[in-house]
Amino acid sequence: MSAFDSLDGVRPYQLWDGITARSVRGSRITFAVVDLEAGVAAPEHRHGNEQLGIVLRGSITMVVDGESRTLRVGETYVIRSDVPHSATAGPEGATVIDVFSPVREDWERLERLEPGRGAWP
Amino acid sequence: MSAFDSLDGVRPYQLWDGITARSVRGSRITFAVVDLEAGVAAPEHRHGNEQLGIVLRGSITMVVDGESRTLRVGETYVIRSDVPHSATAGPEGATVIDVFSPVREDWERLERLEPGRGAWP
Repeated sequence: MSAFDSLDGVRPYQLWDGITARSVRGSRITFAVVDLEAGVAAPEHRHGNEQLGIVLRGSITMVVDGESRTLRVGETYVIRSDVPHSATAGPEGATVIDVFSPVREDWERLERLEPGRGAWP
Repeated sequence: MSAFDSLDGVRPYQLWDGITARSVRGSRITFAVVDLEAGVAAPEHRHGNEQLGIVLRGSITMVVDGESRTLRVGETYVIRSDVPHSATAGPEGATVIDVFSPVREDWERLERLEPGRGAWP
């Protein structure tokens, strides 16, 4: 199994309406490029997986443990295990990188789409 | 302590000559935006931390466990714990995201530079 992959060949997970994730994983980390359409929201949720991320495209308003911030390209977030969080994409949508540890085993139950070009790059 | 950060405010680690990392960390993950100047190389090394990454800018030739590949924007790599790897930036340099689990405690012994604008965004 090669160490290398291209996002173009990955079957995206449908996380929520208008939110898809192209991901690769190791033994400890799930690494995902997440595209959000304009204005869509990921409702408040929490999970044991620690989550860190960065904005690659557009803007996103995140609420982490009650603190709200509108983040732009190059801004980061750290969401500790089991901390409630939500997100709403800005008017041009957003692409973020989200990484998780341990891996998101629960994603294996989600619907997957056909491989295709995402909103980034 | 806020969940949010901007790369512009982070003091970069000097990893090797011509290679710097702006990073944030949680309990399980170190998340780094790594800038490589044109043509510089990270010599072969290994560490117990699992490492996943993606190219954001430029190109980089990586060798992971003896397999070599030149990666461009949107291409990914998965480096399992203790697998030897090296990297050489292309003619325009490269910016990659590298994430590690567990966190890179060893980076705390490295020299840190003053905060400043990196090569990305």
